[in-house]
Amino acid sequence: MKRRVVFFISDRTGITAENLGLSLLSQFEGIHFTQVTLPFVDSIEKAVAATNRINQSISADGHKPIVFATIVSSEIRDILQGSNSCYIDFFQTFIPTLEEELSLHSVNVMGRSHGVSNTHAYNTRIEAVNFALNYDDGARTSGYDSADIILIGVSRCGKTPTSLYLAMQFGIRAANYPITEEDLDSKALPKILKSHHKKLFGLTIDPKRLHAIRQGRSPDSRYATLSQCEHEVKAVENLFMHENIPFLSSTNLSIEEIATKLMVITGLQRKLR
Amino acid sequence: MKRRVVFFISDRTGITAENLGLSLLSQFEGIHFTQVTLPFVDSIEKAVAATNRINQSISADGHKPIVFATIVSSEIRDILQGSNSCYIDFFQTFIPTLEEELSLHSVNVMGRSHGVSNTHAYNTRIEAVNFALNYDDGARTSGYDSADIILIGVSRCGKTPTSLYLAMQFGIRAANYPITEEDLDSKALPKILKSHHKKLFGLTIDPKRLHAIRQGRSPDSRYATLSQCEHEVKAVENLFMHENIPFLSSTNLSIEEIATKLMVITGLQRKLR
Repeated sequence: MKRRVVFFISDRTGITAENLGLSLLSQFEGIHFTQVTLPFVDSIEKAVAATNRINQSISADGHKPIVFATIVSSEIRDILQGSNSCYIDFFQTFIPTLEEELSLHSVNVMGRSHGVSNTHAYNTRIEAVNFALNYDDGARTSGYDSADIILIGVSRCGKTPTSLYLAMQFGIRAANYPITEEDLDSKALPKILKSHHKKLFGLTIDPKRLHAIRQGRSPDSRYATLSQCEHEVKAVENLFMHENIPFLSSTNLSIEEIATKLMVITGLQRKLR
Repeated sequence: MKRRVVFFISDRTGITAENLGLSLLSQFEGIHFTQVTLPFVDSIEKAVAATNRINQSISADGHKPIVFATIVSSEIRDILQGSNSCYIDFFQTFIPTLEEELSLHSVNVMGRSHGVSNTHAYNTRIEAVNFALNYDDGARTSGYDSADIILIGVSRCGKTPTSLYLAMQFGIRAANYPITEEDLDSKALPKILKSHHKKLFGLTIDPKRLHAIRQGRSPDSRYATLSQCEHEVKAVENLFMHENIPFLSSTNLSIEEIATKLMVITGLQRKLR
């Protein structure tokens, strides 16, 4: 397989450069991309060091590295751009278009996104994370009035990471509650959930995938058998449908996708911008 | 203040479009941007609906909305591009450059990033989140051998969200342990931490900010007083320095920035790509 080295370089975390760079590369097959992220390249010195590192990364077959960058300072950018690479700067490309459209000059200051410029937003986020932790796995049920959403589903279907992601990304207060075998046998919603019906959102999962996940956790337990997983998943989906609870399957989705789809389906409004 | 409507549109979650779009807009001051995210615009129908919504969003003073998009399908993109907007598509702009550089045609398939194409990576991530939850706030200390890092600091300095973010973003197993007043009075590391000295990373925070956070949580408690916060922060920073533990201040950093800086300082390698 062909190989190429890819750099993600930023004067801040590099997360934006990584996200868009990886999305773009995912459109190309048959090449193995070796990834290097260089965050906080925010001085001439660091830019020179990064440039040297790029120049040393020409592949055995002579191909230049690809560099995806988000660099605000033109001084730093000029240095990086002098490297022997296919240099793509996501800021440089669009700032002029936006300056024209907005009839404004850009302020040219590093680190204006992702920062805690907005203390209120920061607190909202932290409070939502704390909420998700306190209300994880049915640990507490007395404060569901202040929940934005209550995720329900069988054990290991993805409730916890989804709750945390909703908190971290959107500031949403998500509780989660496990639907147990006893709940399923009774074919009714647990009493505590009934009074919060409008906040319920179901997660389901392919039984084979659930089986694999549970096997990793409790090998060869009854809980992890494929037949048990099939039984629980079928029963919980029936419960969701019978109770008119919106739900989706986590099987082929990343946590980001589950959370974003959930926001669309429920119409919940994010509390962070 | 001037106002403009901004759309983030994607055939998937829209997170990439949001991140880069917001980074770009953060470079412009004096305009209030009203933000609308439209994820999963993955059909002609949805593209037409989105276009109508864009066209209805021309501001009172006649300015067109700005659209930041990541759309793979040229059919869908053509429709959106027909809207009355300043349309910026992050894929369209760079795919041709990359096709030329890589001497390859892009596969033109939606949803190739963020997906769970890689089950191993997905499991690494979930396991790391579970680890962070199990080892939050000193809840458990018996498995520190399998921790990648142990965050330490006074109560409410940002340990928990940082641990969770490290897990979610990088697949890093981060435990966290609160340094109590008694620990600080004894001027020594808790015994359980001593044997894992190399994994320790300190977080500190401006005492005034800590005071505000604790006030929100336990109003008018001794724990929340400014003098108590000043005392604890000074003592914990002394402890970090005396014990040669790397540390940073969470005061002016977002969770993303704390986590990324920590990775740089410690040289920890991410387990997710």
